[in-house]
Order: sequence, then C-alpha cells, then structure tokens
Amino acid sequence: MEKYPNLSKLLVKYPPLVDSYMYRELLHGDPEYLYKASLHLLRAGGKRVRPVIVLSTARMLGGLEAEQIALPLAAGVELFHNFTLIHDDIMDKDTVRRGVPTVHVIYGEDTAILAGDLLFALSFKAITQSLEKGLSLEGSSRALEVLSEAAVRVSRGQAYDMRFEREEDVTYHDYLDMIYLKTGALIEASARLGAIAAEADRDTEEALGNYGAFVGVAFQIRDDILGVFGDPEKTGKPIYNDLRRGKKTILLLYALAHSSGEDRRVLESVAKGNAGEDEVREAAKIIEKTGALEYAMKLAKTYSDNAVAIIEDLEKTGEIVDEEAAAALKELARFVVERDK
Amino acid sequence: MEKYPNLSKLLVKYPPLVDSYMYRELLHGDPEYLYKASLHLLRAGGKRVRPVIVLSTARMLGGLEAEQIALPLAAGVELFHNFTLIHDDIMDKDTVRRGVPTVHVIYGEDTAILAGDLLFALSFKAITQSLEKGLSLEGSSRALEVLSEAAVRVSRGQAYDMRFEREEDVTYHDYLDMIYLKTGALIEASARLGAIAAEADRDTEEALGNYGAFVGVAFQIRDDILGVFGDPEKTGKPIYNDLRRGKKTILLLYALAHSSGEDRRVLESVAKGNAGEDEVREAAKIIEKTGALEYAMKLAKTYSDNAVAIIEDLEKTGEIVDEEAAAALKELARFVVERDK
Repeated sequence: MEKYPNLSKLLVKYPPLVDSYMYRELLHGDPEYLYKASLHLLRAGGKRVRPVIVLSTARMLGGLEAEQIALPLAAGVELFHNFTLIHDDIMDKDTVRRGVPTVHVIYGEDTAILAGDLLFALSFKAITQSLEKGLSLEGSSRALEVLSEAAVRVSRGQAYDMRFEREEDVTYHDYLDMIYLKTGALIEASARLGAIAAEADRDTEEALGNYGAFVGVAFQIRDDILGVFGDPEKTGKPIYNDLRRGKKTILLLYALAHSSGEDRRVLESVAKGNAGEDEVREAAKIIEKTGALEYAMKLAKTYSDNAVAIIEDLEKTGEIVDEEAAAALKELARFVVERDK
Repeated sequence: MEKYPNLSKLLVKYPPLVDSYMYRELLHGDPEYLYKASLHLLRAGGKRVRPVIVLSTARMLGGLEAEQIALPLAAGVELFHNFTLIHDDIMDKDTVRRGVPTVHVIYGEDTAILAGDLLFALSFKAITQSLEKGLSLEGSSRALEVLSEAAVRVSRGQAYDMRFEREEDVTYHDYLDMIYLKTGALIEASARLGAIAAEADRDTEEALGNYGAFVGVAFQIRDDILGVFGDPEKTGKPIYNDLRRGKKTILLLYALAHSSGEDRRVLESVAKGNAGEDEVREAAKIIEKTGALEYAMKLAKTYSDNAVAIIEDLEKTGEIVDEEAAAALKELARFVVERDK
C-alpha cells in the first residue's frame, strides 16, 4: 500500500470508526439470532470502500466537522452494501465470501433474507442519526433522496445481472449499464453523501457523484477480472464462479467477439451457463489468449482516470479544504483498478 | 359494509387514488420483469387498510390539504407492506395470497427477493415525493424516522414469528409482542404518517401512533382467527396454514392451556409443526371446543375499543377538522375485528 500514502492512512483510520459506530448505534437488538446473522459478513472483514469514500469526500469538502456529520451516513452505506451482499449471495447461490461461508449457508435462506431486510432498514435509520450530528434538514432530506434512488438502481442492476445470465445477446453497453446500476450507483451515492454532509452545493455534489460512478464502474470491472484471474486466497471468493454461472462479464463478451472455431464453441457453452468444470477452466485460458484481460484493464483505467480528473478539477476551484483527503480520493480511484483483493 | 357508512366512503375513494399514484409515480421502470413481479400482489387486490389509515388520519387532522400531502406517504406504506408480504411468503412457503399464486411461485424465489427489495426502496423514495406535495422538511425528516423505525420492528417481528414456530414455551405476552412488531408497528407508522402530513404536534402524533398500534394488534388477532375459522373463498388464503406450520397464535396458546389428555396431545403435536392433515383438522375442532375463539375475539375487541377511545379523546380537544374522517377511523377500529376477509 506504499503506492497510496494518503489513502492508506484513511483505510487505517476510518473502518474502525465506522464499525464501532455501526455496532454501537445500530446493530444491536432482539432477537439475537437475527442481529448475529446481520453482523456475520461485517465481522468477516471487507474493505469498507464505500464508507471511506463518504468520509473522505466529507472531509475534503468540509473538514473535520463534515467528517463527523458523515459518520452515520458512512455507516448507512456500509449497512446497505452488506444487505445487497446477503441477498445477492442467496440469488447467486454463492457459498463463500470474505473467506467465510455466506449468511444463508450458516443461518438458512429465510434468516438470510430477513437479515438483509434488517440491514436495509437500518441503513435508512442511519440517515436520521446524521441530524443529531448536526446535518441540516435539507441535507438529511437530500441524503434520503440519494440513498433511496441508489437503492432502486441497485435492485434494477441485480435484476439485469440475473437476466443477462440467461440471455444470449448482451452487448458491452448492456454490461456497462448493468454494472453502473449494480455497483456504480451505490458508490456514486457514497460520494454524494459525503458532499451532502459537507453541505456542498448541488454542482459539487453532482461532480462527486460522477467521481463515484466512475470509481464504481472501474471497481466492478476489476472485480470481474479478479473473478477469473485473481487469487482466491486474496479475494476470499472461489475462482471462476462467474464463468460457471455464465455471467456476461466484459471478459467473456470480449473473448466471444475475438475467438472462433473450437475456442468460440467453448466460450458459448460457458455463456449458456451450463459448462462443465473442464470447459470452465479451458474458457479462462481462452479468455487470456484473446487479450480480454488487457482490454478490460484499459477500460477500467479509463474510468479511473476520469474519476481522478474530477478531483483535479475541484482542486482548481478552491472548494477543497483538505488536500490530503483529495489526494486519498485520487489514490482510491487508482487503487480500485490495481488491487488484487 | 352498511355498518361502516363513513369508512365505506373512504374505502371506495382512497384505494384508487393510492393505486394510481403508485403506478404513475413509482412503479414503472426497467427491467420490466422485475417491475411486473413487484406489481403482482398489488394488482391481485388487497384492502389497502394502511393507506386508508394514512389518508384518513391526515384528513381528520389537516383536511383536504393534508390528505394531498399524505398521498405519497400512503403509497409508501402500501409498497412497504407489499414488500413484507412477498418476503414473508418466501419464508413461510405460502403459495396462495389474495386468491392468486404468490410472487415466488410465479417468478421464482430470486426474482421475488429482488421484487421485495425494489418495493422496500420505493417505499422510502415515496417519502421524498411528499416534499413536492408541500410537506415541510421537518415533516419529511420525521416521516423517515417513523418508517425506518417501523421497518426495523417489522423485521424483528418476522424473526420472532419464525422462531416461535420452533419454540415450545411461547407465552401470551411473547405472542402479543410479536404481533405488535410484525403487524402493529406498520399500522402505527401509518397513523403517525397521517399526523405528520397534517403537521400535527408530537403529542397528537403519539396518540395516533397508539391508535394505530391498537388497531394493528386487533387486526392481527382477527387475521389469526380467520386463519382457522375463516372462509378461504373470502380470505384468499388456504385455511389451517398457521396450524400446519405450528404457529403459536393466541388460539393455539389458549387451547393448549385449556385442554388435557388426548386433546392436549394433538395440540402439542400441532405446536411442534409436524402434525399430519388429520391432526390439523382435529386441532381446529379442539380449539373451537376450548372457547379459544371467544377468548381471542374478546381480546381483539379490547384493543379495538382502546383505539376507538383515542379518537374519542381527540374529538374532545377540538383538534379534529374533519368529523367524517374521525368517524371513519372509529369504524375502521371496529371493522378490523369484525371483518371476515
């Protein structure tokens, strides 16, 4: 992490703040088994990228005071994110995440559905707690707009993701749209919430929203890459799961468009979601051979560069009160495409 | 419905208003299959009791203007309610509701989970739309507090409900607590949201909250009665499902405490959730024999009377601007325990 000196500091500082806030203010109640199920993935780890974005953005635009106000909002997006992970794992039948069995594997599907619902509810409750920290009523109202709109988009994104598994002609455009909805929209909301905590004007919030959307899409492309070329020891997830399910990631789409003959037949079998283990492993090799990895990395890098440029533009306007937080956000935009976990 | 002249008028007027608002302002988008799944139960019917409470309360305290402002809030609670129905039906493995197959039966569990999540998101989005109708920022902020707190309670209630199916020593108190959380909390929130739309003071909101909680508990006791003694043609749900699952309703708890010998053995088998069809039918007869129906109706009536008394108290304070709405709310408190569907 020496490549990211400013981000590293915040990745050490913020996650414990957010965790202790979540555990203290939101995540205790009865019945105990429900709260334990809701806490399971949070306790298993995670990078807390979204709360780090909320808090860094707030700090960049409004200093320490805004960072304080943003804490419940940061907790809210992390709770929301964990709700989506629990429900997605049920739908995708994923059994391992963050190196541990998923919630539905341990607690059963019924409790997992409910644990997700509870986290969803708590994420909205968190917004109301920002008022006590000093957020204005306008800010709180805008935060609700932003989080509820993101929640709608994330549901739509997951619906497209599931449908694309069964669809034959998915385009690059469809894929990018889907990952914006599924992943980009909540990271966009995170950056917006940071701006809202700093009581930034709407133009600045929009700029930060674009930063978050770019970071989110870059993050998801890298996630899809790690799903095929990553080290499961580091990612905490089994390798090739996306291929097994016929997920139309950018890698598979590119490889399909740049292969023929037997290679293409193998990829088409994978795309149909009914390939055996041998074909899945073979497909990974074919994907590598087509240059899909380089193409996907270049695409992710473009989004990352766009995100960095937004922060650089803001630095010219004099709206930034904390340069280190700005540097951290630029580093984060690079980190999400360079990370290997 | 001639016993409820004022309520009848509002049960004709409000549901189409709420439905057209939901369909027009909230329930359209892509992908189509997700929105269709979300709409399925709404289209199948339903009494719209919760939105009727939101709108009647707003009208009672703030007249036509408050009723207008309350429309998005009324839509929000109905969307929220339908989210809980979809997820509960998955957890409870219920296959028929409102006389039609449940969402997960038609669309599969994955889409049903997601359709519920979308409705949940839209219920919070609805709050933000009240601002456009003229709700104050204070009101909108309070509405978020109320709905998010209710959402937490409803999740907790469902968790208790599921756990009680497997637990042996459930008390009347446990049962009443559980149905308050599962059903009472959202009806309480409905009445509070009506008061909030009317910009009522906090004491009045609290009084309406109590009204809603009483109505909600009475409603659920009657629901549990209809589950054993109702006509499936009217309720739209199969009979004896609660007995099949070993749900510790007030009927079963009372009958267990007032039976012995072979009767008690049959009820205990049902309470364990592993009784055959013959035992389930036998249990229904035993429950009737113990007088559990009369006991449960008396209990429901007590809650209903308490709810009526709250409106009568308000009538004495001069805070009520619409007497017909007040009369309708009193009728509704009686209707929920007298209804047969």
